[in-house]
Amino acid sequence: MVKKDYGKMAMALHKKLKGKLEIVSKGKLITRDDWSTMYSPGVGAVSSHLAKFPKDAREYTMKRNSVAVISDGTAVLGLGNIGPIAALPVMEGKCAILKEMANIDGFPIVLDVHDVEGIVQAVKAIAPTFGAINLEDIAAPQCFQIEERLKAELDIPVMHDDQHGTAMVVLAGLINASKVVKKDMTSLKVVVIGAGAAGRAVTLLLLKAGITNVIVTDSKGIIYKGRKDLAGYKRDLAEITNPEKIQGDVMNAITGADAVVGVSGPGTIAQAHVTAMAERAIVFGLANPVPEIMPEDAKFAGAMVVATGRSDYPNQINNSLAFPGVFRGALDRGINHITDDMKLAVAKKLAGLIKKPTADMVIPPVMTPGLVKAVASVIK
Amino acid sequence: MVKKDYGKMAMALHKKLKGKLEIVSKGKLITRDDWSTMYSPGVGAVSSHLAKFPKDAREYTMKRNSVAVISDGTAVLGLGNIGPIAALPVMEGKCAILKEMANIDGFPIVLDVHDVEGIVQAVKAIAPTFGAINLEDIAAPQCFQIEERLKAELDIPVMHDDQHGTAMVVLAGLINASKVVKKDMTSLKVVVIGAGAAGRAVTLLLLKAGITNVIVTDSKGIIYKGRKDLAGYKRDLAEITNPEKIQGDVMNAITGADAVVGVSGPGTIAQAHVTAMAERAIVFGLANPVPEIMPEDAKFAGAMVVATGRSDYPNQINNSLAFPGVFRGALDRGINHITDDMKLAVAKKLAGLIKKPTADMVIPPVMTPGLVKAVASVIK
Repeated sequence: MVKKDYGKMAMALHKKLKGKLEIVSKGKLITRDDWSTMYSPGVGAVSSHLAKFPKDAREYTMKRNSVAVISDGTAVLGLGNIGPIAALPVMEGKCAILKEMANIDGFPIVLDVHDVEGIVQAVKAIAPTFGAINLEDIAAPQCFQIEERLKAELDIPVMHDDQHGTAMVVLAGLINASKVVKKDMTSLKVVVIGAGAAGRAVTLLLLKAGITNVIVTDSKGIIYKGRKDLAGYKRDLAEITNPEKIQGDVMNAITGADAVVGVSGPGTIAQAHVTAMAERAIVFGLANPVPEIMPEDAKFAGAMVVATGRSDYPNQINNSLAFPGVFRGALDRGINHITDDMKLAVAKKLAGLIKKPTADMVIPPVMTPGLVKAVASVIK
Repeated sequence: MVKKDYGKMAMALHKKLKGKLEIVSKGKLITRDDWSTMYSPGVGAVSSHLAKFPKDAREYTMKRNSVAVISDGTAVLGLGNIGPIAALPVMEGKCAILKEMANIDGFPIVLDVHDVEGIVQAVKAIAPTFGAINLEDIAAPQCFQIEERLKAELDIPVMHDDQHGTAMVVLAGLINASKVVKKDMTSLKVVVIGAGAAGRAVTLLLLKAGITNVIVTDSKGIIYKGRKDLAGYKRDLAEITNPEKIQGDVMNAITGADAVVGVSGPGTIAQAHVTAMAERAIVFGLANPVPEIMPEDAKFAGAMVVATGRSDYPNQINNSLAFPGVFRGALDRGINHITDDMKLAVAKKLAGLIKKPTADMVIPPVMTPGLVKAVASVIK
């Protein structure tokens, strides 16, 4: 099959659409009565009411259904720090997904401020319009502190999707993959390659799910307790992962492992690595568009279940499986915080959508009927 | 005629709509090709392009057509400082007007920050998404400094509509009213009652239009050079208005005046004031919903041309006559600053839409065909 040039197609589509989102008025402004109820003087009664009962904003304003998709453009797709303007088409796309999948009014906010304090203050300042905040494509380690601060200081749900969306979907895939390879999930030895935003969140959720033997690697090798150059969150990861205190490179980590989750970059998993894994290996290579190892190569080297971030191979680990339903559920129930228990429940729910998992079907496709409703149902 | 209870009607409409705005995707997400061009991987090509050529955001993103309608909720309608949440329905209404009149994608941002520096930083932080900024319902005197700072520090147009929208429409009305009363506009003696955001902007634009004898009053009486309690912008107004250095109360100001523009509150113009004016007096009472003087009372006291902010009387001085067209023109031509010359041109254009002004028709109705296009045509 001839691969399509999606870049070229996207440039043409974006030039044609000139913005993927449109803001429309639900009410018309034709008669004098329209004007006087949609706007002044009638709207004054609504404002006066909300001044007294601000919580009623969910009944009378768009806050009920609006999610800000916010990025400072420092870690966009695999493109790195390309700035807010260049991040805008990605955030518009994310809002289109929120609308098409979950009927949520997502609005992109790209920020021309890049330090933790500046981002926290900007997001807090604009929060009243929104029912929830989706942080997106913000570089580690700032993203961790920004999310923690906002969760503590705002009364609406805040979720950094690169972290938690990825983690929920990876766990869902691993739940089903362990069934396919007939191993108990909590007994798996899992290697996470890449210790950025997604790597940390995946690791924390796998631990939360009961997997005890998780090893994380970064560009300098295995993260272990006592590694001299570790600081900050990586030092914290060393405390809670790698119980056997293995040192060395990816080969040292992956030898005998049951599963590997790549959240790093193209080509960081070699066929020799897969060959060194335990029998019936599970290989998730999520770098996009070029994964850590191509599925054909992973299979040839002996992997039994292979997943990527791509839509043109089986088992697409796609954040869109989780975040639209998570926000739908949070908005509908007025949930203020997305908890770890909710994330575990989402992963189990997603996994459960596949009645009989197979090597080529450990994760549901994004167009699965009832997907958003199923995910939303466990946000409570 | 029985007056309708627009407050009650508005509460019912807002409860039914649950938010007056909806954000929709212009592209569908059904096929794999849809996903791969609207979003990853194809969108990466658009982001890479914009990283190199950020100005092309106008070709490939919603920045081309998006206006942020921003308020901190400190001066909402006639309701005062009611906070950001209570301001949201008004800002949504403004966005609905932008869409219905000028096909602009307006998005409401209500700010939970209220000092000049905080507002300036928040607006600058979120500016990359937008093609223009409409400041709204921010209290004086902070609004002046905020607008000046943002105009100087951003490369997109910034307009505080309470100031300049009002000023443009008042001037348009005065151009035609002076024809109706057969007086030369620049020779009019004009009293502006109210020295807030609108009062200052109206005064400055009338002076710019060549009217030399403008007197401004605030709650303490006439503003004149040397008044001891004046500071800040009111002191500046004293320097450029009231050439005869009249002192005292509204009666002292208005005696012999040709026109009065009320931008204050209900009941601040008495019939005795109108009686004291020159022959064929022009009376604009713009407080909403209850004007400075009711039109019947002004006419009975001898006024020849009367205008209000209300839609149920002739001559509605309505900001919606100006701001949608101003932003339409600015977005279409990539204008970075709304200048005084543009504001004068808008006022003249609006006035010119009435071929034969009469006492009951000095300003065009908001549903005038071609209105937005006409206004937009002079933003250049």
